[in-house]
Amino acid sequence: MEERKVVLRELVRENPADIAEILSDLSNDQAADVIHHLFLQHAAADPLGEMDPDESAELVVKLDPKEASVILSRMDPDDAVDLLLELPEEIQQQLLSRLSRFDARILSNLLAYPPDSAGGLMSPEVVPLSLDMTVEQAIGHLRARVEEAETVYYAYAVDEFHRLLGVLSLRDMALALPEQSLRDLVVRDAITVPVDADAEDVARIFDRYDYFALPVVDAEHKLLGVITVDDVIDVIREEATEDIYGLASVPSEEGVDTTWFESLKLRLPWLYVRLSTAIAAAIVVGFYEGTIARVAALAVLMGVIAGQGGSAGMQTVTIITRGIALGELEPKQGLPLLVKEAFLGAINGALIGLTIGLITYLWKGEILMGVAACLAMLLNMIVAGACGVLIPLAVRALGKDPALASGIFLTTVTDVLGFGLLFAIAHWLLPGI
Amino acid sequence: MEERKVVLRELVRENPADIAEILSDLSNDQAADVIHHLFLQHAAADPLGEMDPDESAELVVKLDPKEASVILSRMDPDDAVDLLLELPEEIQQQLLSRLSRFDARILSNLLAYPPDSAGGLMSPEVVPLSLDMTVEQAIGHLRARVEEAETVYYAYAVDEFHRLLGVLSLRDMALALPEQSLRDLVVRDAITVPVDADAEDVARIFDRYDYFALPVVDAEHKLLGVITVDDVIDVIREEATEDIYGLASVPSEEGVDTTWFESLKLRLPWLYVRLSTAIAAAIVVGFYEGTIARVAALAVLMGVIAGQGGSAGMQTVTIITRGIALGELEPKQGLPLLVKEAFLGAINGALIGLTIGLITYLWKGEILMGVAACLAMLLNMIVAGACGVLIPLAVRALGKDPALASGIFLTTVTDVLGFGLLFAIAHWLLPGI
Repeated sequence: MEERKVVLRELVRENPADIAEILSDLSNDQAADVIHHLFLQHAAADPLGEMDPDESAELVVKLDPKEASVILSRMDPDDAVDLLLELPEEIQQQLLSRLSRFDARILSNLLAYPPDSAGGLMSPEVVPLSLDMTVEQAIGHLRARVEEAETVYYAYAVDEFHRLLGVLSLRDMALALPEQSLRDLVVRDAITVPVDADAEDVARIFDRYDYFALPVVDAEHKLLGVITVDDVIDVIREEATEDIYGLASVPSEEGVDTTWFESLKLRLPWLYVRLSTAIAAAIVVGFYEGTIARVAALAVLMGVIAGQGGSAGMQTVTIITRGIALGELEPKQGLPLLVKEAFLGAINGALIGLTIGLITYLWKGEILMGVAACLAMLLNMIVAGACGVLIPLAVRALGKDPALASGIFLTTVTDVLGFGLLFAIAHWLLPGI
Repeated sequence: MEERKVVLRELVRENPADIAEILSDLSNDQAADVIHHLFLQHAAADPLGEMDPDESAELVVKLDPKEASVILSRMDPDDAVDLLLELPEEIQQQLLSRLSRFDARILSNLLAYPPDSAGGLMSPEVVPLSLDMTVEQAIGHLRARVEEAETVYYAYAVDEFHRLLGVLSLRDMALALPEQSLRDLVVRDAITVPVDADAEDVARIFDRYDYFALPVVDAEHKLLGVITVDDVIDVIREEATEDIYGLASVPSEEGVDTTWFESLKLRLPWLYVRLSTAIAAAIVVGFYEGTIARVAALAVLMGVIAGQGGSAGMQTVTIITRGIALGELEPKQGLPLLVKEAFLGAINGALIGLTIGLITYLWKGEILMGVAACLAMLLNMIVAGACGVLIPLAVRALGKDPALASGIFLTTVTDVLGFGLLFAIAHWLLPGI
């Protein structure tokens, strides 16, 4: 018992991110118990803010509601909102009702923004400055309110309507002379983020301009909050995970810690979608059952041709969807890319096609069967290249994330065509079968 | 001609990241011409530093070597090194020989670190402080040397051997009283990055602790430089791109702007690798040519069974490789994950197997053929789940990136087994065929 107390007392001195990691490894009951002890030492808010919101939400419901609401009020508002969003509406309201009117209003305002928008990422904790201040006054003002600010590395100058006038970096202020006016230091045409910007666009702005923090404004250019780069790193990671998962038809909610039953519910629907497309392809093969019975070699070849089309097409889909995700693909590039990929498909298809044609000839001694395999491969890979561009662009034009569905459409096309082309060409070249 | 001058004069006022974007869209000759004009206005270094190093390297070789070396000396050293690394050794040496001895030594030192290590990411431009200073002295010191520093948001205190004693944030200094000693403000057990740390590990440290900059130290804890979060964002993006590409067998050098000939050279080898594994699977099918000729329906089914195994296995591979990339997968989780995924494979396989078995029965009216399809599907999906865990872990244990090769191994296993299991079980259940 004594030992436990010592451990808990030591724990408080750790970095909040490290405490969060330890909490994640404990059972929920143990973790809630540790949180309670951290709370008694006024040190529960930061570690909870560092945890994944779905994990911290599971702990918060185990706490005394009074304690939970105090912790919530001490968390950074952007982290508190992420946590609240993981709770059932009822518990959300219960916790909000226990907060001070001021805190409750801040959080309710933030809850109204979509989580994957600039509004959902921002912290409203900015300390606005007036351009009439001197550097000394500004630093004094920041010093007095440092606890309220999400960042003090940048400060923001506003007019009497709270409209953003410009950005002041702490660097410039710290290195300027105390009596200088903020007017001499302010950067007026600062880069701002509209509050309704998509989180992925926010990430691209950060990536491009290398700032640590950016101000968020509404349509009237009023300063609403600030987004810091650490929140953007999470967005970039999540976005990449979503794309990677999407291309393999894994729902983005999954991770290595998901329970088997959750995994089952998440993955099974996708496997049934994939099954239905595979059956569509099988129906094409079914039309040629008679042909297969006479020339079983075609059954051996068809998988190779469909598979190569799928592999080549997925290379193209991957490059196009990643280009879209990184914002590197401009609309005017669509047609040139279509031409390039179809052309590449033709060259790759000719080379791979000649290889498989030669192998077929050496295996069966029938030149025309080799020609059929070669032609089917060539045509399937041209179509795979073209569809590898067209499908992601079409999915995006429909307003969906191209990474999520393009792979399934693509393999359906290359399977159906791979099978169909081989049998059709074989029929045409080898009239006997 | 007049108009052109006006445009060039306007351009200098743009954000360097925006100038870099414009330069990327111009032909190399035009861009080199613009760089020359920016150079005359002392404004060429920052835009070049914002460009992709492979693009900026193409421009630098078009410049007068004297001009190029001046620009290089004005760039941030970490950006200058990235650019130099893209140039042939000969041009590298030529440019370095034109620099001042001081600048040349800084860049040569940095060139010695692997680009994907902490040493390759860091900037050596730190302004060290002594703990004997007051806040006022420290800020005066920083003010005098602000041009040399990569960041002044954090400053670093060192002893007489240049060993790191602790970190001082500009925030704490700006908000402290001028006469306070740095000893009162220094954070002594600061998080540091070893100079030989892998870039991906550096990214994980930043992700975890939410700092804007971290000091880089050698084995003796001497301060070598500083890594800022903007460089880490690039690492995270590149790492994600590499993983996404790897799972689809696209070499990570490719992007939407790659020429078709480059794309061909990059992708064709992978397609041949994929072809050889497809042929391996086809050989298995080839053993059963006689069986196929008698029961062509098996040829229709085999693609469905192999395909479902591949899809389910790739879901698992994707989750495991992403878990490894994000540092979420701990070694002790290997066995439980293997059990979970094999078990999930059994449940998914039973459900999908019953579906395909029923369809087969309804199609052919032969109950035993339905049973064969169901059993082959079940077994293939169990193996797919298990291999989906084992293959990435084995690839990692061999010191390779699991994202790069796991997909090809996995589909080879599921193809060969999908085909082989179906025929073997059909032979056993339907002795007539």
